[in-house]
This record gives sequence, C-alpha cells and structure tokens, in this order.
Amino acid sequence: MVVKVYGPEYGSSKRVIVCLVEKEIKFEVVDIDIFKGENISPDYLKLQPFGLLPVIRDGDYTLYESRAIIRYYAEKYKSQGTELFGNTMEEKGKVEQWLEVEAHNFHPPIYTLAVHTVFSSKLGITPDQKVIQESEAKLGKVLDIYEERLSTSKYLAGDFFSLADLSHLPFGNYLINGTGKEYMIRDRKHVSAWWDSISNRPSWKKVIKLFPPPT
Amino acid sequence: MVVKVYGPEYGSSKRVIVCLVEKEIKFEVVDIDIFKGENISPDYLKLQPFGLLPVIRDGDYTLYESRAIIRYYAEKYKSQGTELFGNTMEEKGKVEQWLEVEAHNFHPPIYTLAVHTVFSSKLGITPDQKVIQESEAKLGKVLDIYEERLSTSKYLAGDFFSLADLSHLPFGNYLINGTGKEYMIRDRKHVSAWWDSISNRPSWKKVIKLFPPPT
Repeated sequence: MVVKVYGPEYGSSKRVIVCLVEKEIKFEVVDIDIFKGENISPDYLKLQPFGLLPVIRDGDYTLYESRAIIRYYAEKYKSQGTELFGNTMEEKGKVEQWLEVEAHNFHPPIYTLAVHTVFSSKLGITPDQKVIQESEAKLGKVLDIYEERLSTSKYLAGDFFSLADLSHLPFGNYLINGTGKEYMIRDRKHVSAWWDSISNRPSWKKVIKLFPPPT
Repeated sequence: MVVKVYGPEYGSSKRVIVCLVEKEIKFEVVDIDIFKGENISPDYLKLQPFGLLPVIRDGDYTLYESRAIIRYYAEKYKSQGTELFGNTMEEKGKVEQWLEVEAHNFHPPIYTLAVHTVFSSKLGITPDQKVIQESEAKLGKVLDIYEERLSTSKYLAGDFFSLADLSHLPFGNYLINGTGKEYMIRDRKHVSAWWDSISNRPSWKKVIKLFPPPT
C-alpha cells in the first residue's frame, strides 16, 4: 500500500516524509494550499477536523498529527529501514522523552521565529522585533541544554539516530536557512556537529530536494 | 522496583501517577515545591535540566516529560493492569494521534485558563479577562471537535479507554473544579458523558484523594 501524505510543502509534513524515507516506505503526496483555504475545505476537514497539516491515508486508515504518524510507522515497520526507536525499552523511553522536548521546548520558539522571519511576507505580517528577541532567548536556553546533552552522547536519546533527532529536521532547517540565525546552531559546538550529522543524512537531502522549503 | 515520582501535587505529575495506578505499578512520591524554587536546585536540574515537573526515577533509570513516561510504562508493563494502547497497531496509532491532540490543542488553552483562574492568586497575577476569553474560545472550538468525535465512539481513540483519555484527567479536572467553566464540559452531551466515564475511574479517584489538587 502506498501512503498518501497531504501537504508536502509544509514543515510538519516533512517530518512524516523523512520518516517514511528512513523506513523505506513508498509514498505519494497530495498538495494542500493553506493560502487558498484548502485545509479548511469540507473534504479536508473530514480527514483532519482541526484543519491542520499533515494527514496521511494508508488504504482505509487515516491518521493525523505528525509525531503520532512517525511513531506509528517507526513501530509498524520496525524491521524495515532505519531503526528509529533504539533497541531497548529504556532507549525507547529516552526517544519519547526527547520527542516531547522537541514538541514542547524546541518547537514553540522556532515556530514563532519562523513566522516572524521566513514566512512573514507570505503571511502578510510585520515582523515584531520584540517577539523575535523573546523567541531567540527562549530557544537559546533550550539549545544550551542540548549542547550539554550532546557533549555526552552523539544523538539526543543516546548514541543512536532516532525519531527524536529526525523530528527536529524541518524546523531546524528553517533556523539554518531563512531566519538569519544560523549562528544559534554554529556557536554551539556539539549542537553544530549534531545538526550536520542529521541534516546530511540521505533521507533529509532527498526530502528537501523533492519538496524545497521556502527560503 | 518502586517508581519515584517527583512533584505529585502538580497536574502533569498526576498524569503519570494515574497511569501507574492503572498499570498496578508501585510508586512513592518526592515533594517538590516550585514556589520555593526546588525545581531549579542544582540537584533537581541534574534530573530534569529544564526545571520542569515531573521526573521519575526507577532504579538507575531517570525519565522526564509526562507523556513520555506514560508511554514508557504503558508499553513496558503491557500485560499488567489496564491495556492503555488499544489492541492493534492501528488502534495504537489513534491513541498516539489523540495524545498529540491533547498536548497541542487541548492543553495550551486549558493551561492558560487555569493560570488565570485556579492559580492566579498563588502565582500573584491579576487575571486577564481578555486572555481568559480568548482561551475559552480556543478551548470551545477544540471541545466542539471532541463532541463530534465522541458522538461516534465511547472514548477518543475508539471504544476503549486509553492513554489519550487518561492524559486529559489532570487539566480536565481543573476545568471542572476551579475555573468556573464547568459548563464547557456539561453543555456538550457526549463530552460530558466521556468526562464522567473517565473521571469516575477508581484510578483517578484514588489519585485526587491521595494528592488533592488546589481548589
């Protein structure tokens, strides 16, 4: 069965697509243009009642929320492609922990930064310098903790690449390309090495080649 | 091994404790008073570098982020106590989806509501009526989607109680007891029946008896 991924141009959808590539799962994409309101059309709302991206269809099965989708495929195709949950229950627990850190600590400030830099003209908003500064300060504190963590292990959950690292790729890419704040990664030695390691994976290179993010 | 849960008085820690009760896992608690800054003491930051609650210790194993911890125990003790992930991979996917909806759609507005109502005097802030109204509007839209969902299945992920439902208990309880906005649950027939079903479970009754939330 080929997995249909809706909205490949958006960051959260790329989180799903790079997971499918790592797991060697065939997929096709369905374009959704939120600037034309396609995410709040009656047909789309039947798939995703909150009007958010992404959603996937896999035969009769529909699933939304990017971090739920990547967990589903990482487990369903456990023995295929890259193992993304570690090898033990305790490693999996750490993967879950850092997935949650990505969602609740890393994502909110980088999302706000991206809205006020990368996407401001497309969204028609005037960048708010105070919001940008506050977001940068919050994100800096988070990355300081990452720096400490990554001084003792190669990846976030341990010495193995996992969903926790993968989940940072789409918005980490905006941080590096578009916000003008690449130094937030580069000024932190271990974060910088980690970013190079994960963003140079063939899976991510394939995803940004297939579906270039806005710059 | 007895699981040590830090900060049982707080909502997110109760998410972990009610899971441990459902899974029939022995635990003890360690009090942490954030109003005394105990969450940012050097010893605590070694366990949880972000200074957030909860964290658990299980022998030598340490884990933080409440929704990571509940996933870990629901899987590690799969055959013990209540099954909290459903019975199939596809059911588990739906549990993950609604866990993410709880974290990203339900939690932010109810958290803000609770800060400006239940906790405002303890936090020393003046309740901001505009913020309260905006949070109520956001939460109302989310609960409208829950109402629709719960008209077709008894619980969020399907006709089985799961981590997705359980994860709503601590802040759902604040909504019912303390915000003055119980009607947001009661005015929605299916949400109201769902809330009664999950909040009357012996596990939750035990948790709020052991560790009464502020009222």
